[in-house]
Amino acid sequence: MNYSDNYNPSLSDTKIFNDIVKEKESIGYYNLVNQDTTPFKKYAKTVKQKDVVVIGIGGSTLGTYAIYKFLKHSKKLKKKLHFLETTDPIDIEAKLEGINLEDTLFIIISKSGTTVETISIFKYINSLVKIDKSNTVVVTEFDSKLNAYAQIHQMRRFEIPKDVGGRFSVFSAVGLLPLAIVGINIDDILAGARKMHDSFFSKGTSYSTLLKKARFFVEYKNKFNINVLFSYSSRLEGFNKWYIQLWGESLGKIDVNNSHQGLTPIGIVGPIDQHSFLQLVIQGKRDKTLTVVKVKDFEKPLKIAPITLEGLEELDYLNDLEFSKLINMQADATIEAINNEKDIPCDVITIDSVCESAISGLMYEYELLTSLCAKFMYIDAYNQPGVESGKIILKNKFKK
Amino acid sequence: MNYSDNYNPSLSDTKIFNDIVKEKESIGYYNLVNQDTTPFKKYAKTVKQKDVVVIGIGGSTLGTYAIYKFLKHSKKLKKKLHFLETTDPIDIEAKLEGINLEDTLFIIISKSGTTVETISIFKYINSLVKIDKSNTVVVTEFDSKLNAYAQIHQMRRFEIPKDVGGRFSVFSAVGLLPLAIVGINIDDILAGARKMHDSFFSKGTSYSTLLKKARFFVEYKNKFNINVLFSYSSRLEGFNKWYIQLWGESLGKIDVNNSHQGLTPIGIVGPIDQHSFLQLVIQGKRDKTLTVVKVKDFEKPLKIAPITLEGLEELDYLNDLEFSKLINMQADATIEAINNEKDIPCDVITIDSVCESAISGLMYEYELLTSLCAKFMYIDAYNQPGVESGKIILKNKFKK
Repeated sequence: MNYSDNYNPSLSDTKIFNDIVKEKESIGYYNLVNQDTTPFKKYAKTVKQKDVVVIGIGGSTLGTYAIYKFLKHSKKLKKKLHFLETTDPIDIEAKLEGINLEDTLFIIISKSGTTVETISIFKYINSLVKIDKSNTVVVTEFDSKLNAYAQIHQMRRFEIPKDVGGRFSVFSAVGLLPLAIVGINIDDILAGARKMHDSFFSKGTSYSTLLKKARFFVEYKNKFNINVLFSYSSRLEGFNKWYIQLWGESLGKIDVNNSHQGLTPIGIVGPIDQHSFLQLVIQGKRDKTLTVVKVKDFEKPLKIAPITLEGLEELDYLNDLEFSKLINMQADATIEAINNEKDIPCDVITIDSVCESAISGLMYEYELLTSLCAKFMYIDAYNQPGVESGKIILKNKFKK
Repeated sequence: MNYSDNYNPSLSDTKIFNDIVKEKESIGYYNLVNQDTTPFKKYAKTVKQKDVVVIGIGGSTLGTYAIYKFLKHSKKLKKKLHFLETTDPIDIEAKLEGINLEDTLFIIISKSGTTVETISIFKYINSLVKIDKSNTVVVTEFDSKLNAYAQIHQMRRFEIPKDVGGRFSVFSAVGLLPLAIVGINIDDILAGARKMHDSFFSKGTSYSTLLKKARFFVEYKNKFNINVLFSYSSRLEGFNKWYIQLWGESLGKIDVNNSHQGLTPIGIVGPIDQHSFLQLVIQGKRDKTLTVVKVKDFEKPLKIAPITLEGLEELDYLNDLEFSKLINMQADATIEAINNEKDIPCDVITIDSVCESAISGLMYEYELLTSLCAKFMYIDAYNQPGVESGKIILKNKFKK
C-alpha cells in the first residue's frame, strides 16, 4: 500500500511557540516593548498647541484612540486629541468645529504615505490654515513619499518601522507620539505591554492561557465563527474597535490550502448591549464565543442616591450602591446567565483599573492572541491583499 | 404506505404578507406612522432649557440617537440632546461635564418603568439637582410604576403603547418627543416612515424588494449567518447601532421547532472600515451578506484643495474633488470589488440626502424587514425571553 497526502502538519503548542519565537526576528511589533521613548517625550515637551489633530485612518488611529478614550477622562489631560479619519464631509466639518486651527498641532500618519483619505484631508486642511514645520509633524515609513514631502518642508518626522504592520503599530510612534503629547505616560504604556510580552515569552501564565484560547478558537472556527468581545465599560469602546480591525484584518485570509478562512470579531459594551445583543447570544444560533472584559476598580466613588422614589420602592435595594460595583455585578450576572446555558464558550478577562499599563497589557495580549490564531490557521496575519482590488478600482475610476 | 411529518408548512410570499397584515392588528409599531404628533410639538414649544438629557437604555435611546446623530450637524439644532444610558461611573461623570444641570430638561424613558440602569441614574441625578415637574418628563407605559411616581409628582407623562416593543418604538413618544424638543421636524420623520409603510402594504416596490431580501436571508441563514451593514457615512453610526439591536434581539430566538436561530448583525462605517473589516469580507470565510448604505447627496460643498504636495504629485488626481463625491466613489469601488468575488451576497440602498424622511424611511424599512425575517423563521420578533435570566440573577445577588 502506498499513501501520500498534501495535509499540513498537525500543530503542537511547542511548534507554534517556536514559530512565534522565530517570527519575532522579522515581525517588528513583538519587540516594540523595549524601545527608547526619549524622542517622543522630548518632542512632546516642545508642543505648545492646545489641540492635537491626528490625520490618519485604520491602523494609524484606532490604537491611539483606544488608549486615549480609555484614559482621557480619568487622567484629566491638558491637551485634546482629535481624529480626522473619514472622507465624510459632514464629519470633517463637525470635527473641526470648535477647534482653533491656529492653535493646533497636526500629526499626519500614514504608513505607506499615500493613503487616499489621509492625503485628501491633509490637502483640505491646507486650504484652511497655513501648514508648515511649526504646526505639522509626520509619522510614516522612512522612504515614503509623505516622508519626502516632510523632508522638503523640514518638518519633524517620526518613523514607522517597515516590519511593523499598521494594525500592530500602536506601540510605535503611531501611538506613542500623540499619546505622549497629550500627557499620557508612555513609559507605563510600554511597561504594561512588556509585562505581557515577558509573561508569554518566558512561558509564564499568559503562555498557557493564550495558547489554549487560540487553539480553541481555531479548532472550533467552523462552529463558532464569531468572537464577541463584551467590554463592561464604555471607556473600552475604542478598544473594541481596535480589536475588530486587528482580528478581522489579520485573520480574514485565504489559507495555505487556498480556502477562505476567518474569525469574525464583534465588539459590544456592557451593560448597554445587555439590552441589544445579549438576547442573540443567549437564545440565538450557537455560533459565538464570548469574551467578557471587566474593570475591577473604576476609581470613581459615584453612588446611587439612597432615596425612595414613590411608587418605585421595589428598587430601593439599589440605594447607596457604587456604580463601579453595580456594573461589575451586572457583568457577573451576565456571565452566570451565559454559563447556565452550558454551550456558549466564554472566558473572562479582568483588568485592574483605569490606568496606562492595564490597557496596554490587554492590547498586547490581543496582539499575541492574533498571531497565535494565525499560526494555527496557516495564514499570514500581517498582510491584507484583499483590500488592494478596491483601491485599484477606485484609482481606475479617476482615469475615465 | 403511510407518511406523516411535524414540519411546519412552507411559506409563500402571499402567506407571509397575509400574516403581516394580520399581525398589524396586534403589533403597534406598524401603525405609528399615522399618529397625531400635536401633543409632542405642543410640549416641545414650552421647553425653555438648552440641554436635554434622555435617561434610558436600549430601545429607549438607540432609535432617537440614530436620527439625532444623522441630522444634528446638518440641521444646526438650537438644543443639545444627551443620553445617559450606562452604569459606567466614568461615562456618567464625563457626560455630565459641561452640562448646566440647572438649565436641563430630563426625559426619563423606560417601557417597563423599572429598568435598573435608568432608575439608578435617575436617583443619582436626584442627588445633583432638584427634580420636579419643571425639569422632568416621563415616557413609559400608562400603568407602570414609573408612571405612578410621575403622577404623584404631577410630572408631564407620555405613553409608550403596550403593543409597541422597545426596539420598535422610535416612532412613538420615545423618539418623537425628544426629537421634537431639539427642533427636528417630526412630521417629516413620520412622512418618511409612512411612505415606506404605504409602499409595502399597497404591494409597491418595497413589497417585492423586502420579501425577496427576507426570503434570501432566511433561506441561507446557515451559510450566511452574519449580516453586515456597511454605511458610507459616519452620520449613520447611530443607525448601525439601532440596527444591531433591532436585528439581534428580534431574530436571535428559539424557534417553533425548539431550535436556536439567529442572524447576527454587524454595523461598519465606510470608508473607515475599508481599513479594518473589508479584508475579512473579501478574503474571509463566506459566512456574510453585505448591505451597503449610501447617501446620494451630503449637501456639503467641502472640496479637496487643488494643491500639489511636493513628493506626492501622484495623488493630484484627487484635486478639486468634492468629498461628497469621493466617499461615494469609494463606496462604488468597494461594491465592485465585492461583486467581482461573485460569491458574496450584496445589496445597495441609496438614500437621497441628509434629511428627516430619508433616515425614517430607512429605519421603517428595516423594521419591516425584521418582521418579515421573523415570519420566515417561525419566531416571535417582539419578545426577548433570553435576557430575563440575567435580570433575575442580578436581583438575587442583592438578596444575599
